[in-house]
Amino acid sequence: MSAPTLEGNAVIGQGGGPTAVINQSLVGVIEGLIAAPEIGSIFGARHGVRGMIEDSFTELQALEQHTLDRLANTPSAGLGSTRDKPDAEYCQNIYKSLRGKNVRYFFYIGGNDSSDTCRLVNEAAKEGGYELRCFHVPKTVDNDLMENDHTPGFPSAARYVALQHMGDSLDNASIPGIKINIVMGRHAGFLTGAAAIARTHEDDGPHLVYVPERAFDLDTFASDVEKVYSRLGRCQITVSEGVQDKDGTAITTKFFQGETDAHGNVQLSGTGALGDQLSAFLKEKLTPKGGKAPRVRADTLGYAQRCWPDASRVDQREAREAGRFAARCALTGQSDGSVAIKRDSTDPYRSHLERVELTSVAAKTRHLPEDHINSEGNHMTDAFVQWLRPLVDELPRFERI
Amino acid sequence: MSAPTLEGNAVIGQGGGPTAVINQSLVGVIEGLIAAPEIGSIFGARHGVRGMIEDSFTELQALEQHTLDRLANTPSAGLGSTRDKPDAEYCQNIYKSLRGKNVRYFFYIGGNDSSDTCRLVNEAAKEGGYELRCFHVPKTVDNDLMENDHTPGFPSAARYVALQHMGDSLDNASIPGIKINIVMGRHAGFLTGAAAIARTHEDDGPHLVYVPERAFDLDTFASDVEKVYSRLGRCQITVSEGVQDKDGTAITTKFFQGETDAHGNVQLSGTGALGDQLSAFLKEKLTPKGGKAPRVRADTLGYAQRCWPDASRVDQREAREAGRFAARCALTGQSDGSVAIKRDSTDPYRSHLERVELTSVAAKTRHLPEDHINSEGNHMTDAFVQWLRPLVDELPRFERI
Repeated sequence: MSAPTLEGNAVIGQGGGPTAVINQSLVGVIEGLIAAPEIGSIFGARHGVRGMIEDSFTELQALEQHTLDRLANTPSAGLGSTRDKPDAEYCQNIYKSLRGKNVRYFFYIGGNDSSDTCRLVNEAAKEGGYELRCFHVPKTVDNDLMENDHTPGFPSAARYVALQHMGDSLDNASIPGIKINIVMGRHAGFLTGAAAIARTHEDDGPHLVYVPERAFDLDTFASDVEKVYSRLGRCQITVSEGVQDKDGTAITTKFFQGETDAHGNVQLSGTGALGDQLSAFLKEKLTPKGGKAPRVRADTLGYAQRCWPDASRVDQREAREAGRFAARCALTGQSDGSVAIKRDSTDPYRSHLERVELTSVAAKTRHLPEDHINSEGNHMTDAFVQWLRPLVDELPRFERI
Repeated sequence: MSAPTLEGNAVIGQGGGPTAVINQSLVGVIEGLIAAPEIGSIFGARHGVRGMIEDSFTELQALEQHTLDRLANTPSAGLGSTRDKPDAEYCQNIYKSLRGKNVRYFFYIGGNDSSDTCRLVNEAAKEGGYELRCFHVPKTVDNDLMENDHTPGFPSAARYVALQHMGDSLDNASIPGIKINIVMGRHAGFLTGAAAIARTHEDDGPHLVYVPERAFDLDTFASDVEKVYSRLGRCQITVSEGVQDKDGTAITTKFFQGETDAHGNVQLSGTGALGDQLSAFLKEKLTPKGGKAPRVRADTLGYAQRCWPDASRVDQREAREAGRFAARCALTGQSDGSVAIKRDSTDPYRSHLERVELTSVAAKTRHLPEDHINSEGNHMTDAFVQWLRPLVDELPRFERI
């Protein structure tokens, strides 16, 4: 059976926080479409859905292979991204804009909010009786998409977090003290957990890891730190920016009144507040009566986590392939879907791609599996480390004297 | 004339903030001493001068070459470091400790405080009529040692700052807003300035760079940012943690009461306070009447600057050679000194090492040359960029669409 041919133009957009490999997926989609005779123009939407409603597009089909290759290796969203979270009306406008440009193929690279946008645009087109093939290409450093073993963007961010912790643990051993590292991840602790693969020796940092999946209690935290500090004379701690108390209140809001975005989310990244407040808290709690306060420092890892220009090679390859796969699905007549990475084996590492329903990904959040967090809720398990290791390429090996 | 032979043991210590290549210098000294028949034991002092007065040493002469090579490539201070700043009495105790172990060769790897320690120990030994060859091996990410074109540790830190800004500028272009990056450097702006080599296109970030060598005025700052922001719709700003007002008061102290260390220095690193306060300041200043506040974020680059485990190759080579050179000076009969890197040419890049007097380096601070800062005091000049470029290895090249 040959695929039904649908002639028209294509649009590609990028949404949400950028990653080190989101342009790999963009290039993958372009590569997947470029030779298809039924595709007219390939439009890139500037700043995602915003460019679609503001009619801001750039043509991509004439880009040469050497340009595509260099674009693929460029971190952050080459087309520009947006934090807009379209509702049904906004998506109606996207649909009308696309229809007006004779677009029959719509690809949106992003996280779970972006897959929901894809779903809504798809519905609007269906209601309008207009055939529009809508595909979501996964991307998020948070790794919180359902159906996926892991998502493009996460392995590169995980590699950055691991390398940062490796260097920082040696720094902490060299001038002993208490060191807090705040890692991105609002609801899911995958990226924070990545710090755990920095360890080689039993006494390497991180000594404690706190993820949003477990209730964070300030007193338990202080007591955990004290135990490590009295044993080793130092303590490196990894804390997710999204840690919450048992009632689901973000710990950072106990200290800090930040701004909220269009999604109603409190600002967590781009501020050092949580780290500084946890520092001050520990300093006060752990100063013996009449004694000297311990040396406590905090780093908030920041946007380098998602755009550090040295991506994981596994991540680069999979992100590119995910884009190509979405193009192939659309060209072979499938009407909509999201692309998911499925793992076949860990050693040797092998994965494949599958088309999954938009509704099974859209606006949902995946969390760390139970067996990836230790029973005390203050570190990761070996199962997590084994799962993560093949994704981050080789890590350097260091010497001790 | 053959060199006078002095039989005895050697001690090596590491002081101050660690770097990505301080172990290269440690290994360089060991390699320089290991074959000399007049050297008995090579002791490594644990945590610098503190290990010397607490009799905490480890023997280094039996380390095999493959171990030394891996140690050299390990970031941070392998022997441990210290923030102790010895006075004359402390140095008397160091001298007595060294004499008690029949140490005749003393190597201290560190910044300007460490070179002053070296000078004081040297004086104590001279007063005691004890021949002790004292050599300082330079190290500091701040690049603030006199007599040096640049210091080991700085090129690797500069590379990290450049790469972080390259990725971050693309991130800022993708989701436009105002982004502040706080970079290490208490008195000297070399490391902050390194952000400037991240630029390829005229509108790439960083758009503004503020170093401690120029008075920082909050109103001028706000007006600089507004100009860029209204022209480009975004603005990436690099600010040294040590920026000061015209009276020499650190800007961070206007906002924040931090702790002070044994040197009387206010805590600047290990807190996100300065970035957060400058964010809040800009948000308030740049919100139009009745209008929407601009998106302002701040990252404080943190300890990754000094211990990121992917050093500049030029830096690795020069740091190793500086250690070997110090050993050679001591073994050929010179009684004391510091090692300085002198540049021979920029293109192609060539440098050589020289012995300089301890007093010309000790406790002094080098600043950015006048012609490395632009006349407005808000960016670096081409002269600075040309000077820096050969030190940081090749940087990635990115694509725009």
